[in-house]
Amino acid sequence: MPNPIITLTTDFGLRDPYVAEMKAVILNISPDTSIVDMSHEVEKFNLRMGAYFLASAAHYFPKGTIHVAVVDPGVGTKRKAILIKTRHGCYVGPDNGVMALAAKNQGIEHVYEITNRKLMLSRISGTFHGRDIFAPAAAHLANGTPATEFGAEIREIVTPEFAKVVRRENLLVGEVLHVDGFGNVITNFGEKELELMKIGDSINVKLGKVWLKMKVCRAYAEAKPQEPLAIIGSHNFLEVSITQGNAAKTFKIKSGNKVTLSL
Amino acid sequence: MPNPIITLTTDFGLRDPYVAEMKAVILNISPDTSIVDMSHEVEKFNLRMGAYFLASAAHYFPKGTIHVAVVDPGVGTKRKAILIKTRHGCYVGPDNGVMALAAKNQGIEHVYEITNRKLMLSRISGTFHGRDIFAPAAAHLANGTPATEFGAEIREIVTPEFAKVVRRENLLVGEVLHVDGFGNVITNFGEKELELMKIGDSINVKLGKVWLKMKVCRAYAEAKPQEPLAIIGSHNFLEVSITQGNAAKTFKIKSGNKVTLSL
Amino acid sequence: MPNPIITLTTDFGLRDPYVAEMKAVILNISPDTSIVDMSHEVEKFNLRMGAYFLASAAHYFPKGTIHVAVVDPGVGTKRKAILIKTRHGCYVGPDNGVMALAAKNQGIEHVYEITNRKLMLSRISGTFHGRDIFAPAAAHLANGTPATEFGAEIREIVTPEFAKVVRRENLLVGEVLHVDGFGNVITNFGEKELELMKIGDSINVKLGKVWLKMKVCRAYAEAKPQEPLAIIGSHNFLEVSITQGNAAKTFKIKSGNKVTLSL
Repeated sequence: MPNPIITLTTDFGLRDPYVAEMKAVILNISPDTSIVDMSHEVEKFNLRMGAYFLASAAHYFPKGTIHVAVVDPGVGTKRKAILIKTRHGCYVGPDNGVMALAAKNQGIEHVYEITNRKLMLSRISGTFHGRDIFAPAAAHLANGTPATEFGAEIREIVTPEFAKVVRRENLLVGEVLHVDGFGNVITNFGEKELELMKIGDSINVKLGKVWLKMKVCRAYAEAKPQEPLAIIGSHNFLEVSITQGNAAKTFKIKSGNKVTLSL
Repeated sequence: MPNPIITLTTDFGLRDPYVAEMKAVILNISPDTSIVDMSHEVEKFNLRMGAYFLASAAHYFPKGTIHVAVVDPGVGTKRKAILIKTRHGCYVGPDNGVMALAAKNQGIEHVYEITNRKLMLSRISGTFHGRDIFAPAAAHLANGTPATEFGAEIREIVTPEFAKVVRRENLLVGEVLHVDGFGNVITNFGEKELELMKIGDSINVKLGKVWLKMKVCRAYAEAKPQEPLAIIGSHNFLEVSITQGNAAKTFKIKSGNKVTLSL
Repeated sequence: MPNPIITLTTDFGLRDPYVAEMKAVILNISPDTSIVDMSHEVEKFNLRMGAYFLASAAHYFPKGTIHVAVVDPGVGTKRKAILIKTRHGCYVGPDNGVMALAAKNQGIEHVYEITNRKLMLSRISGTFHGRDIFAPAAAHLANGTPATEFGAEIREIVTPEFAKVVRRENLLVGEVLHVDGFGNVITNFGEKELELMKIGDSINVKLGKVWLKMKVCRAYAEAKPQEPLAIIGSHNFLEVSITQGNAAKTFKIKSGNKVTLSL
């Protein structure tokens, strides 16, 4: 049996001891777990960005992987702590939408509210449930504690706005999920919308206030330098890029901006 | 037996190969060790920040964990290399105060000067004891080499100024240990000072040049947005925060600034 | 038998999910592998910086370590994917020079072009060979798949300009490989050039437009504060530093700048 894997996605950054504290708690409860940092550079409180990271990377992990997500502006309020079981793995974190995109992609089987105090740290702070509730929950799961022991099953989870694409006549209106470090603009046009186009097509995309005509490509090198192109990227979302350039800077695009696709 | 754990706290950042070199040396000597990054984003030469990270996170790690701290402005001078055994684990690093706060919290049992050349790399550079002395020492400790083999026992370690809180009449004067990525201001008012207040109290804190009146809370959500509050945080130090705001920016506070508490 | 080790050196940064996806792919194929982050903060497309990181750190890792390097401006073009076997370990990445400095230092034994589709992910994107080709190749190597199964042996690899030092009369002309986080200027004057000097010598180095006279030292503390010194550093490259200062800022030096040494 390989060691269980727990991934961590947070907005804590690495300048603070918070991530290390979560790892410490996990290793205390489940010493043989492999902990993998998904990212700790999610922008503070940016649920959309955390959701994209999870949706993008989670399906590459082995079956049974446990994903902890702590982007948690509502910590200390009445928002629920939840555990989602999917066909592929488990998700542990706040019920604010940060895990919804990834979990739905994998097929949600059950959702439990985490309320069992015996599976938390003995002292629960009002500010850091990542360490006091989510890290111990993930570690107990890794040790084999059944999901049903964490709390009552619930039916509904919070579903984020940014997971939706709206059709208006012959236009599809979505939004920018993320701008990556290369300036690539990743939209929320996913598998369903990608079926409407194929490599080599010419498409019209509105970013900010301008309509851009671009070719659907598989690789950056298929377009000339400084030319915009649409990439059917490695994450099953439509990306707008500029070969040897920075699309986000050129078109002044930020995460959350609207993006329109003409059919 | 779970694998031994070695944590690393440095000011090397992740843009340089220094941390990887330390891990390479550790894995060469002790291949089964789990290495956990505490933080490598301690500000260059900022002993106070390194000390806070260790003090904040170390006690969450399993018993027997070995903590390596390399914030080392005096590398290549006569400052000692030391190994501290506490009731909870071991600390390896320079004798400049960076480990003192955490080690004292856990209860120091023995301190040894690291002088045994056989437990270092064969070539010792003048600039990088993290790799040449501290990493091998931690790895040999993880392999079971007794602490007494590293060098002679010593009685005194360097104790940092920032660990002290001074009483002046009815005022307690301390300092800011750290400003975290959320703008929370973490003071050096610790367990002893926290006993003087309780949740719900109203207290007066001087940050920079202004006296601020604030409520002692458990969670950010207990105060109104943009309102300052005192958090008895998750690290047993008093923190000043602003709900949905940035306390450090609002009050122009940096690590090392004086902070005063009126009783 | 200790677990196999795979190191990762990329220009992906930690704000994006790319590194996590590579780790996921590796753990899916080879669950017991220890993954060590060399650095993900190589500047985008900066082959020189990636090459320096590998050359600097690789030789500290245990024999048999597999190093994956993904600084890959030509992804999706006809540049080869290669596997280099050295006397000390293996290198997996694009054939663009990023692995040449480290691999040559260790002694290259064989080079193979990676073409066997069975040892890649089933779907190969045009933009992310780190995840689709290099990560699976490294994981299969870690599992014991012989290097000969990945593709045909090749004779030549791309050798970077920045690995060369030119002699002009009594001058040696090289370049700056890297500026580290402390502002130390690391040149490409390596073992061969270092044999021409010894600790305590006074040497003349031209950085930018100025000739500087400096002492060859082992430790920063051997020079006065704010004084330039030449360090025979911990990586077998000549470094120019300023004690308690920032040499790169003072002399306005960047990676890639020319540096001249007078004999």
